[in-house]
Amino acid sequence: MLKNYTGQEALERTLEALKNKTIKRVFYVACGGSSALTYSSKYIIDRDSKTMTAEAYNSNEFIYRNPAKLDEDSLVIAISHLGNTPETTAAAEFARDKGATVVSFTYEADSPLAKASDYRIDYQYGPQVNPADSRNIQIIQLTLGLLKIKEGHTKYDALVSSLPSLQYTVDKAIETYAKRATEYAEKYQNEKMIYTMASGSNFGVAYTFAICILMEAQWINSHAIHAGEFFHGPFEIVDKETPFVLLLGLDETRFMEERALKFLNTYAEKTFILDAKEFDLSKVEESIHGEVASVIHLYVLRALSREFAKVRNHPLDTRRYMHKVEY
Amino acid sequence: MLKNYTGQEALERTLEALKNKTIKRVFYVACGGSSALTYSSKYIIDRDSKTMTAEAYNSNEFIYRNPAKLDEDSLVIAISHLGNTPETTAAAEFARDKGATVVSFTYEADSPLAKASDYRIDYQYGPQVNPADSRNIQIIQLTLGLLKIKEGHTKYDALVSSLPSLQYTVDKAIETYAKRATEYAEKYQNEKMIYTMASGSNFGVAYTFAICILMEAQWINSHAIHAGEFFHGPFEIVDKETPFVLLLGLDETRFMEERALKFLNTYAEKTFILDAKEFDLSKVEESIHGEVASVIHLYVLRALSREFAKVRNHPLDTRRYMHKVEY
Repeated sequence: MLKNYTGQEALERTLEALKNKTIKRVFYVACGGSSALTYSSKYIIDRDSKTMTAEAYNSNEFIYRNPAKLDEDSLVIAISHLGNTPETTAAAEFARDKGATVVSFTYEADSPLAKASDYRIDYQYGPQVNPADSRNIQIIQLTLGLLKIKEGHTKYDALVSSLPSLQYTVDKAIETYAKRATEYAEKYQNEKMIYTMASGSNFGVAYTFAICILMEAQWINSHAIHAGEFFHGPFEIVDKETPFVLLLGLDETRFMEERALKFLNTYAEKTFILDAKEFDLSKVEESIHGEVASVIHLYVLRALSREFAKVRNHPLDTRRYMHKVEY
Repeated sequence: MLKNYTGQEALERTLEALKNKTIKRVFYVACGGSSALTYSSKYIIDRDSKTMTAEAYNSNEFIYRNPAKLDEDSLVIAISHLGNTPETTAAAEFARDKGATVVSFTYEADSPLAKASDYRIDYQYGPQVNPADSRNIQIIQLTLGLLKIKEGHTKYDALVSSLPSLQYTVDKAIETYAKRATEYAEKYQNEKMIYTMASGSNFGVAYTFAICILMEAQWINSHAIHAGEFFHGPFEIVDKETPFVLLLGLDETRFMEERALKFLNTYAEKTFILDAKEFDLSKVEESIHGEVASVIHLYVLRALSREFAKVRNHPLDTRRYMHKVEY
């Protein structure tokens, strides 16, 4: 356990320690919003790695599916903010029993998950924290770091050199969308159902906005639709009354999101379009615009969620079941 | 192209031809309902294979994500019923350009997808067709066959010896649920939103019922929730008014579905519970009950969809956009 290092140093020391380990498979293991944060990292490994495979599993799915390839050549990256999600701690213990190495992202150094991990990456948390110090970016950074130490990938360095400008980039994006977010929340505060949509490295953000914000924190029905799947079933529910939050990113799959946009522009009328082409990424190295855009999306959607909470008089931390009843 | 063989013979000859090929990676590539049919096969390879990895991608996501590990040691299994889904044909061509071998499940021997494939598995189609001759079971059979020829897996033979009893098993399951299906459709015909839920090898069935039946064929809002993810966000929308179709299967992940059932039984009131423990699997070899149950689920849900279509006076083939407008 690298308990005494924080943030960037913990991340770099973890990568240093992993240099000598054979890694054939990376398993991202978490639940809900924590799991959604890893989808863009699976995307990166799928797209770029010649030597490693990636899976992103819900923690219990991981345990019960019991992958035959989980072994000493596996790296498990487990995420739980408070480190007390029972399924994720169990998944880390399960993985270590199989000989895998476990790196965890958990805020609490003494949490059950931290104790079940070989390495813990420390991060900062809260509305005032610099995005560069958040797990939102650090999970991607660790992934790019793995590609660097194993395959000489160059995007890790591009991301590290762009970290100082992330706060500026996020602030500008929130500002750019501020008026539209306020208006959208005001206008559609009484909707019973709001779909989200994206593809590629942005799909996890659409998923987290659907399940953690709309469903969990606002009790609005929702569903994250993959922009490529949209045309093979889901689009039949589209009409002028059905709201959509559509993300357009800057990764290789943008074509699918643009195709969905064209359709929504023709047949729907309650669409919130969040397009990364409107972000000011001038201070971010171009090679990682796609990766960074997915994180910026998350921050803008959180700003949108605060508008919904305000106008609907439904605070984001109101729960009826979570941590309140037995389940 | 094995154009002159049909059904079981095409499948067996394809497996025979693949014996001498190195297969490190299997990519299931399709769109919508065809893609959903492959999730249970990815589950099988994840769980059982020591030597092969599996991915299930939407066809365009596959092309644009452009996996670095797609190469001559890859097998791509492409599915499109009429073989004219442009994304899937493009995906097959893309994969062959990378040196991969392509096996397709397509009904039309002269379709673009068939022409873009190295091997085509023929199958039968339609409401009267024996489930053993349908692609629903044959995709799983091919997957178990790969595990047999590469790793000596025994479930392929168990499935083959159980094929003759599948019709009986499906008929009995539909009969068992007939009254409940009629009543559920009658009672909840006017619902605006119906969630579906499952885990493990059953998740694809929940997904296809959500996007291809409820959304596409009935224009009812829907969303497939993973039963393990349910407790990390989605369950906050549960109340007595929110309908759920919950699948309980017989695979290793059943615990998650049972946990979701317990919660729904306490806090929801409009739940259709489809439990594979009620299926008569006495004629199916026990080692493949989990795999077969996921297919039976699909048949029972199709029967449920016919009840919805009837009582709602909304035929299952009514479309407003698909193949009608440009998109």
